[in-house]
Amino acid sequence: MSQMVDVGTTVLLWLDNRRKWLVEVSENREFHTHKGMVRLSELVGKQFGDKVSTLTGSTLYILRPSFCDRLSFFQRPTQILYPKDIGFLLLRLGLESGTTVVEVGTGSGVATAAMANIVKPNGHICSYDVNEGFIRKAESNLARIGLLQYVTLRCSDAREGFVESDVDAVFLDLGDPWNIVPRAYSCLKSGSSLASFSPTVDQVEKTVTVLKKEGFIDIETCELLLRNMRIEEGKSRPETRMIGHTGYLTFARKARKDVSE
Amino acid sequence: MSQMVDVGTTVLLWLDNRRKWLVEVSENREFHTHKGMVRLSELVGKQFGDKVSTLTGSTLYILRPSFCDRLSFFQRPTQILYPKDIGFLLLRLGLESGTTVVEVGTGSGVATAAMANIVKPNGHICSYDVNEGFIRKAESNLARIGLLQYVTLRCSDAREGFVESDVDAVFLDLGDPWNIVPRAYSCLKSGSSLASFSPTVDQVEKTVTVLKKEGFIDIETCELLLRNMRIEEGKSRPETRMIGHTGYLTFARKARKDVSE
Amino acid sequence: MSQMVDVGTTVLLWLDNRRKWLVEVSENREFHTHKGMVRLSELVGKQFGDKVSTLTGSTLYILRPSFCDRLSFFQRPTQILYPKDIGFLLLRLGLESGTTVVEVGTGSGVATAAMANIVKPNGHICSYDVNEGFIRKAESNLARIGLLQYVTLRCSDAREGFVESDVDAVFLDLGDPWNIVPRAYSCLKSGSSLASFSPTVDQVEKTVTVLKKEGFIDIETCELLLRNMRIEEGKSRPETRMIGHTGYLTFARKARKDVSE
Amino acid sequence: MSQMVDVGTTVLLWLDNRRKWLVEVSENREFHTHKGMVRLSELVGKQFGDKVSTLTGSTLYILRPSFCDRLSFFQRPTQILYPKDIGFLLLRLGLESGTTVVEVGTGSGVATAAMANIVKPNGHICSYDVNEGFIRKAESNLARIGLLQYVTLRCSDAREGFVESDVDAVFLDLGDPWNIVPRAYSCLKSGSSLASFSPTVDQVEKTVTVLKKEGFIDIETCELLLRNMRIEEGKSRPETRMIGHTGYLTFARKARKDVSE
Repeated sequence: MSQMVDVGTTVLLWLDNRRKWLVEVSENREFHTHKGMVRLSELVGKQFGDKVSTLTGSTLYILRPSFCDRLSFFQRPTQILYPKDIGFLLLRLGLESGTTVVEVGTGSGVATAAMANIVKPNGHICSYDVNEGFIRKAESNLARIGLLQYVTLRCSDAREGFVESDVDAVFLDLGDPWNIVPRAYSCLKSGSSLASFSPTVDQVEKTVTVLKKEGFIDIETCELLLRNMRIEEGKSRPETRMIGHTGYLTFARKARKDVSE
Repeated sequence: MSQMVDVGTTVLLWLDNRRKWLVEVSENREFHTHKGMVRLSELVGKQFGDKVSTLTGSTLYILRPSFCDRLSFFQRPTQILYPKDIGFLLLRLGLESGTTVVEVGTGSGVATAAMANIVKPNGHICSYDVNEGFIRKAESNLARIGLLQYVTLRCSDAREGFVESDVDAVFLDLGDPWNIVPRAYSCLKSGSSLASFSPTVDQVEKTVTVLKKEGFIDIETCELLLRNMRIEEGKSRPETRMIGHTGYLTFARKARKDVSE
Repeated sequence: MSQMVDVGTTVLLWLDNRRKWLVEVSENREFHTHKGMVRLSELVGKQFGDKVSTLTGSTLYILRPSFCDRLSFFQRPTQILYPKDIGFLLLRLGLESGTTVVEVGTGSGVATAAMANIVKPNGHICSYDVNEGFIRKAESNLARIGLLQYVTLRCSDAREGFVESDVDAVFLDLGDPWNIVPRAYSCLKSGSSLASFSPTVDQVEKTVTVLKKEGFIDIETCELLLRNMRIEEGKSRPETRMIGHTGYLTFARKARKDVSE
Repeated sequence: MSQMVDVGTTVLLWLDNRRKWLVEVSENREFHTHKGMVRLSELVGKQFGDKVSTLTGSTLYILRPSFCDRLSFFQRPTQILYPKDIGFLLLRLGLESGTTVVEVGTGSGVATAAMANIVKPNGHICSYDVNEGFIRKAESNLARIGLLQYVTLRCSDAREGFVESDVDAVFLDLGDPWNIVPRAYSCLKSGSSLASFSPTVDQVEKTVTVLKKEGFIDIETCELLLRNMRIEEGKSRPETRMIGHTGYLTFARKARKDVSE
């Protein structure tokens, strides 16, 4: 990847930890912040890591957007998964280059993108959502981040079954995951993993009950709490406010049905 | 990957959520659990997800080891990173196939393996440790999991500098990360990310102080708390015991020095 | 209170933060620890805060038992409430000298004692438990701590109603608090508070549903997490292990029924 | 206490869990909320627990203010302690009717009031603050809640020593508690407890270091996290937002100096 910013390059303009913007460099555009305006043409020829000044003298850093930066600027028709949950998901599902995944509940495509970024170039994500608007938004988000080619988006009701079979992992992120579990069982490779994300305890209970009934084992549910720290010499402490809850993650593995014995 | 178990296949024998063992199938070995013995030759020809009975009648499931299962059976000369921390690290550092990473503090190679599994086949991890015993143990762990080819292990003191330059990410997991930060700055691509893991607040303070001084920006520190849930219909609740602390994760990005202005 | 230890005085022998014992001083007894033996007669005439040596040379401090020390040595037929939950309860129920409280679920009497210690000498705790063994144990625990005179223990089923009426506060600590809520409504002063402690989410849901139906308002549920810190100069950090869950506390206030409008 | 509202009665007007107001009933005043106005004269003759309608038809409940309600309406020149921390403090310091306490850092008097409410009528709180404005504000807050007679407020620098001696407990809530520890040692009864509240890790480290040096033992530091739950049938879950940090509580007990051996 080039270190040089050019017309068409997407950069992260960074003012401080709370204020950063994803901006595409163009020759004639101005970018306005409450700390003053930047002519984007001034960025051309700079390197990532360089600074630029606003007309009123504030400093913005020009950074190469990280993958998380890009995810955080996805257009979001729905509540999105947080990086703390997605990171754990990627590792616990054992995703790597080449893995095939079925996702139910595309939403804005944030988890879809995170999974596609790991399984590319030989793996694939098939993502289902009944909501056509979500599918279109996710499509545009995935295209902009360059990952659409590793994803098949299906606007259909997963309760009626999946096209795919023998997949390496399933991820459920919808309101009634328990209704998808039987279909998920069928399309998973034996011994492979399913994950499900739900905000309420009742959703988790219903899902775990069906998982047990359908022949999943090694069922575990957890939640992750992210606590930001304010680090200053001699004054360090956790931040006063935090996100208290996003949702519960449930993991399970497909065992073969008793007919096999 | 074949779904059939053969001599030489590594399987996970699963009794329940707390008791699971990683076992290599061989023709003449017996595997003993406190729930009875299994002749491993009986596993040959079974499929992943099938069951096997011990001589005393207990049921063990034969599962394909997930990546996390394999990590959890690494031989550990040192305290290891937990999946909750590693997953977040992978996502926040933006690792993907092709990324190059320098790690300082190989330890048992758990984080090394998790990173290698994502950056393969075109990316690479260079991992430093001053302790020769750790390096040897990590080498054997990485070889067994099939990832050694994506890793260069260096038994040398990272405070004296890195061989690598222009890398995409740096991960520090050692007792005095602040002493490595200047070298990390030099070897990182401009605008790229560094992460550091430390158990104590003092370590984090010292590291953040040096990060600021050396020209890193977008510095954030957090910790992740994993809370397991006991899910049973009508009786769900968080588990009574939990791990209260593993360590703090600090993230930062390299800005270019002022000479560039 | 005298600062001098005598025969019959109950002292806390303190070795370190994890090892402390509540001991009654007598002339002829020996007290054995794994760090050696102490002749209790040696304590007579010492002051609180003094030390005593075991025969093998370890140092034990002689401390006046705090109220929490005494609670922690209650004989416990059942799981007990933790200080973190009890402290919040005392404050949120607004207990003070003179308050009258009905408790359902005496258990070992730990919460009973903590409440009695605040409402004495003019207030009173009436505590119900269906289990006679618990009542007897609580009676002995409360007598030993000198608080029995402020407590009436009733071995009866609170679902059949309370003897008391017009009480200032109700505390429910039993498996099916929702079955007691209608009786609790009747015996509470209008506008006064009820608290309930339950380990599972389902118990809380059922209780809150009945609270709403019976005419309680200002209903809030929370849980408290206690995290111990390991404080050492330059090495401070949260402890590795913690209690992840004890139970949920629900608070509510009695509104008057609509007939009053 | 009367259950009847009269002119001069202080009531809590309760709209919902987030919106409640402490109001003194008077004959000619109107009370305005964004849900409409209430003529306070209408409250006279009502009972606690009754309702009143605003002119626009919303319902407000008339509740007897709990002790916590009253604390939450203290005028606050400074950050205040939270009930979760105060409740634990009361219990861990073993406060009861008759206890004498020295507090350093009166602030708005919230902890002062909570302690006074427990130790009254025979106990006493002596509270020090160098800031005269705080002392005056605390005085007015304590007078309004009827607890001033159990408190002596001293506008002086506690580093120069306390008037009191032989007290049962000390509570430190100021920026540099370590500077007060030697004086606290002198004024405490041997074997009695000190508590200290500090937001940062560095403050705790410094305090614990001096506590050890001055002859305190049984030193423990913790923090409490309060997590609110959203309880609805079939939809229960922790609240999305929470307070991530208020401060650390440190407890210690005075041992006698070695001269006593």
